[in-house]
Amino acid sequence: MDREALEEKETVRMEAFSDGVFAFAITLLALNLRDPSGSGVSLSEGLIKEWPAFFAFVTSFVTVLIMWMNHHNMFNYIRKIDRRLMLLNGILLLFVVLTVFNTSLVADHIQQADANVAATLYSGTLFFLALVWNGLWWYSTAGRRLLGRDVTEQQAKTITRQYYVAPLAYGAALLIAPFNGIASVAVILAVAGFFAITATISD
Amino acid sequence: MDREALEEKETVRMEAFSDGVFAFAITLLALNLRDPSGSGVSLSEGLIKEWPAFFAFVTSFVTVLIMWMNHHNMFNYIRKIDRRLMLLNGILLLFVVLTVFNTSLVADHIQQADANVAATLYSGTLFFLALVWNGLWWYSTAGRRLLGRDVTEQQAKTITRQYYVAPLAYGAALLIAPFNGIASVAVILAVAGFFAITATISD
Amino acid sequence: MDREALEEKETVRMEAFSDGVFAFAITLLALNLRDPSGSGVSLSEGLIKEWPAFFAFVTSFVTVLIMWMNHHNMFNYIRKIDRRLMLLNGILLLFVVLTVFNTSLVADHIQQADANVAATLYSGTLFFLALVWNGLWWYSTAGRRLLGRDVTEQQAKTITRQYYVAPLAYGAALLIAPFNGIASVAVILAVAGFFAITATISD
Amino acid sequence: MDREALEEKETVRMEAFSDGVFAFAITLLALNLRDPSGSGVSLSEGLIKEWPAFFAFVTSFVTVLIMWMNHHNMFNYIRKIDRRLMLLNGILLLFVVLTVFNTSLVADHIQQADANVAATLYSGTLFFLALVWNGLWWYSTAGRRLLGRDVTEQQAKTITRQYYVAPLAYGAALLIAPFNGIASVAVILAVAGFFAITATISD
Repeated sequence: MDREALEEKETVRMEAFSDGVFAFAITLLALNLRDPSGSGVSLSEGLIKEWPAFFAFVTSFVTVLIMWMNHHNMFNYIRKIDRRLMLLNGILLLFVVLTVFNTSLVADHIQQADANVAATLYSGTLFFLALVWNGLWWYSTAGRRLLGRDVTEQQAKTITRQYYVAPLAYGAALLIAPFNGIASVAVILAVAGFFAITATISD
Repeated sequence: MDREALEEKETVRMEAFSDGVFAFAITLLALNLRDPSGSGVSLSEGLIKEWPAFFAFVTSFVTVLIMWMNHHNMFNYIRKIDRRLMLLNGILLLFVVLTVFNTSLVADHIQQADANVAATLYSGTLFFLALVWNGLWWYSTAGRRLLGRDVTEQQAKTITRQYYVAPLAYGAALLIAPFNGIASVAVILAVAGFFAITATISD
Repeated sequence: MDREALEEKETVRMEAFSDGVFAFAITLLALNLRDPSGSGVSLSEGLIKEWPAFFAFVTSFVTVLIMWMNHHNMFNYIRKIDRRLMLLNGILLLFVVLTVFNTSLVADHIQQADANVAATLYSGTLFFLALVWNGLWWYSTAGRRLLGRDVTEQQAKTITRQYYVAPLAYGAALLIAPFNGIASVAVILAVAGFFAITATISD
Repeated sequence: MDREALEEKETVRMEAFSDGVFAFAITLLALNLRDPSGSGVSLSEGLIKEWPAFFAFVTSFVTVLIMWMNHHNMFNYIRKIDRRLMLLNGILLLFVVLTVFNTSLVADHIQQADANVAATLYSGTLFFLALVWNGLWWYSTAGRRLLGRDVTEQQAKTITRQYYVAPLAYGAALLIAPFNGIASVAVILAVAGFFAITATISD
């Protein structure tokens, strides 16, 4: 194999690994939904009372889905990888995997006294994830280190600007979380909705 | 990479992600099967009493399998993707993932008073899934937006007609569910069987 | 895409889906291993007492691994797929997924009175899996329906003969199971060992 | 397909299967994190008390990530596979999957009297994994059996030397484990950190 084919193969394999983690994490979210019966209520009452679990499930599902879509998009520009990128990408995936756990915390606590603790962990994880994401992009674009040859300076700059939104939005959610957990989660859902809509308009 | 190669790569990656979710969801169904012993019955008695879990497992397994086969088939015609399609596909996967949870509800409740609630949720999820599926196909075919160049108008129309069956059948299952949960699940199993047989005949 | 490229792509996608299920099922086996402490014994004593769980884990892991290797090998000969093959492959995967559940039954019951029930289910599933496997191969080779053009008649016949071994061996394990559960599981482990050794010799 | 294309396809499929197991195992680690509330403490207190679970999670996540990166790297040199390699790779994956279970043991016991038993199992599994890894590499390089044609003797030797580090380091962790479980886990985390840093420097 020549050098370019090897680079291509390596990048494809890292994308496939990341896709595996994204797909698996998004599916594991379903395990946070639990049969509510047995606690002396009927199934329909129980399911209605369990709305925070569904709320957390949908928020996390859409958030991870949007992330995957953007990850996918980012690697249309990044065409080479090196071990530092693999490591940064690994840390990013660590935060994605933590989201599965955080979602269960939010589902269980959003109606309780410690809702704010759960929301702080949830939004904090997403905030750090967004920082790592930006770090990964900066690393790839600095000196055009890992960009494809046909990516223009203009395209790279546009994306750099777009990526600023996530740490700002999740940072806001993190600031709100200690005071109002449910509002913090609502902000996160709104961010996902915002990205979904702008993505489909700017397409 | 030229534009066509890039489009190809993007489509392949979205298919791979979807395949991951289908494969995980179908495997996670196994976690709904539980060791029946410990409740004072022998293992063989317990397993026989647990037939609803196996019934729900097989119904969901075959349903998700057929969906995967049709998803696979659909992307022989859809050769490009855009972000709106990715989003529609993501919503479709959300309903696939929900099926794992719904299967556990059906397994636990099909012999109880609230069997109909479980069956309504189960068939309702499949009904909405079928609507999203049709929406995804309409979006791709409208003005031949995302179809491959060699797909004929006739082929596209045949598929459009085939896809009408699912929302009708799952809609029927949804209408039956509040009155007779077990009949509703039987309809869903029959739909899967029907698709499996017609698929293999029309091949 | 021309017809051959499309066939190739379809086959690759079905292999990828199957690999996902194999890989996921093999990893889920780890969830059958449980922390033995809390039942009043020390961790080391508990782990030693839990040997049936490790025994079942290793047996299933090696069995699924060998199956995956053979599946992998089979699709060096099968180069096209149709919907009947996809369905047969799906049923095969259903039995693979059931193995995860059966392994937990064997782990929990192999030292108890109903060890034979667990072993019967375990070996019975593998027996039917082996039958479906042979059916899949027969279907693909009949009239060379789905074989690659460069596969010789001789190669196909050799494989047909090799595949007879599995239903015979698992059939034997199934016959033994009602009388001696642990011997039945030992036969299954021996079969995996046999395939592993012959595979590496005949390579 | 010609012989080389077939070899390529086989290698790619084995890498994909391995990637699947790595990705699932790394994501399943999240299931070891549990909601600490309910035991009469607040969520924030509970999460702080649960630090061993996070410590074990991060250690295992980084360890499996580094392994995956090295596995990925190794298969830039190994370009062919045979069934003996597939089997060795399968045993390697068995130890990767066991890491999920071992992580839960470490998380639950690191603060208890039997921390050393958990740490011994954890480091012992990694030690054997490292041995199998070296065996796999020796097998592939012996007589250049499975190496790519363009891999130089010098490159192969450098890697052989690099791979010695893992069994030595995990062997040390194994020797420490019976006396000081937490120090043993710290060594394992340090090894992962060391590989991460050297990998990114030597890049």
